[in-house]
Amino acid sequence: MAYELYYWPTIQGRGEFIRLALESAGAPYVDIARGPQDDGQGVPAMTHFLEDKRVVHPPFAPPFLKDGAVVVGQTAAILQYLAPELKLVPRSEQARIWTHQIQLTLCDIVAEAHDTHHPVGTGLYYEDQKAEALRRSTEFCSARMPKFLNWFEAVLARNPAGQRHLVGGKLSYADLSLFQVVEGLCYAFPKASARVLAKTPHVLKLRDRVASLPRVAAYLRSERRIAFNEDGIFRCYPELDV
Amino acid sequence: MAYELYYWPTIQGRGEFIRLALESAGAPYVDIARGPQDDGQGVPAMTHFLEDKRVVHPPFAPPFLKDGAVVVGQTAAILQYLAPELKLVPRSEQARIWTHQIQLTLCDIVAEAHDTHHPVGTGLYYEDQKAEALRRSTEFCSARMPKFLNWFEAVLARNPAGQRHLVGGKLSYADLSLFQVVEGLCYAFPKASARVLAKTPHVLKLRDRVASLPRVAAYLRSERRIAFNEDGIFRCYPELDV
Repeated sequence: MAYELYYWPTIQGRGEFIRLALESAGAPYVDIARGPQDDGQGVPAMTHFLEDKRVVHPPFAPPFLKDGAVVVGQTAAILQYLAPELKLVPRSEQARIWTHQIQLTLCDIVAEAHDTHHPVGTGLYYEDQKAEALRRSTEFCSARMPKFLNWFEAVLARNPAGQRHLVGGKLSYADLSLFQVVEGLCYAFPKASARVLAKTPHVLKLRDRVASLPRVAAYLRSERRIAFNEDGIFRCYPELDV
Repeated sequence: MAYELYYWPTIQGRGEFIRLALESAGAPYVDIARGPQDDGQGVPAMTHFLEDKRVVHPPFAPPFLKDGAVVVGQTAAILQYLAPELKLVPRSEQARIWTHQIQLTLCDIVAEAHDTHHPVGTGLYYEDQKAEALRRSTEFCSARMPKFLNWFEAVLARNPAGQRHLVGGKLSYADLSLFQVVEGLCYAFPKASARVLAKTPHVLKLRDRVASLPRVAAYLRSERRIAFNEDGIFRCYPELDV
């Protein structure tokens, strides 16, 4: 049976980390909120799980995944759930914990990248917090982005199985997620991220390697890949690229 | 062998979620950074894992846990790692995923609570971002805190095994973490959190029940429990309690 992914239909957002894992594994899935309402899909199908009081395990927010009777929310938990089946994580328990730890750190930088344009509140428009956004972006570009990317660089550099992957000698969902984070940073902060990536060559090579994986490359060219835009997590506001 | 917990020695912070799990299970552990440097403990013992280039799995930040040769970072990953051994999670795989999902959502509210006093940047002082902090706290108190606490209330209310626990019919680490979040919110935002908790009776009862567990109660009275203070995540700035 196909996995059902529930996420906002017009942005990459946090759902993209799940889409990339499913696409790179060639797994069958339905991107429910992008489907036709006449078939019981679309955004109302997603809202059901968030609002229906009969749902025993309600997700707090999209993305969430339905696999038969199982509903799993939270990006990192979904990837941890999917990965063994999709063969996107090593078998050893210790390697799985390490992969999850890297993914949680990727989720942290995603949250911080989001907050550069929404430092005051998610409920307000960017236009209502531009001054604060500039202050937060300045710290993000000069301190936080380098700190995170240097850590991923160190993880790659120290991997006993080689520098091609974050964990062990094979592709894991952490590699896919790091690819997506780098893509997002390059979109949102082209100058600032180029500055950091010039000093994190292993991260840069991993990004290029993931982009050229046949299934990933096909996905990126397809209509299933939503373009980056200014409703998502990574937004191109040139004034914030400092 | 005793677990080794590595976290900043003068704040509850994110380390407190690990301390509570270990304490409530009566597990042997050493709070390394609070120990004497003469015994190879203290903050330098912690910095070693963060800075020594020979560490193959460096944590991104405290807290992290050392269990023999295993080093695990990220609060939610540490709890997931510890819980089976400490009997703080049900046996079924599905219940474990659900518990982890709740914990990740607790980590999200912790991050947002932190950002109320540091909306512009962690590297700056609160005094340098007081105006922004007031704007962010206003949204946190009026929208985000109720949204999160209402979700935890719904999780409790819908638990088929009864309303005493978030998952199944026994204490899990998610219960302990929710206790800690409520304690923190009541410290930081006494008026705003009282307003919300008046409408989330199951959450309030869970907080009281956890506080009265013999091992937890003994811990809270002990010197091992660091008092809340204005260097941690939850800070009492009366002007932000809106």
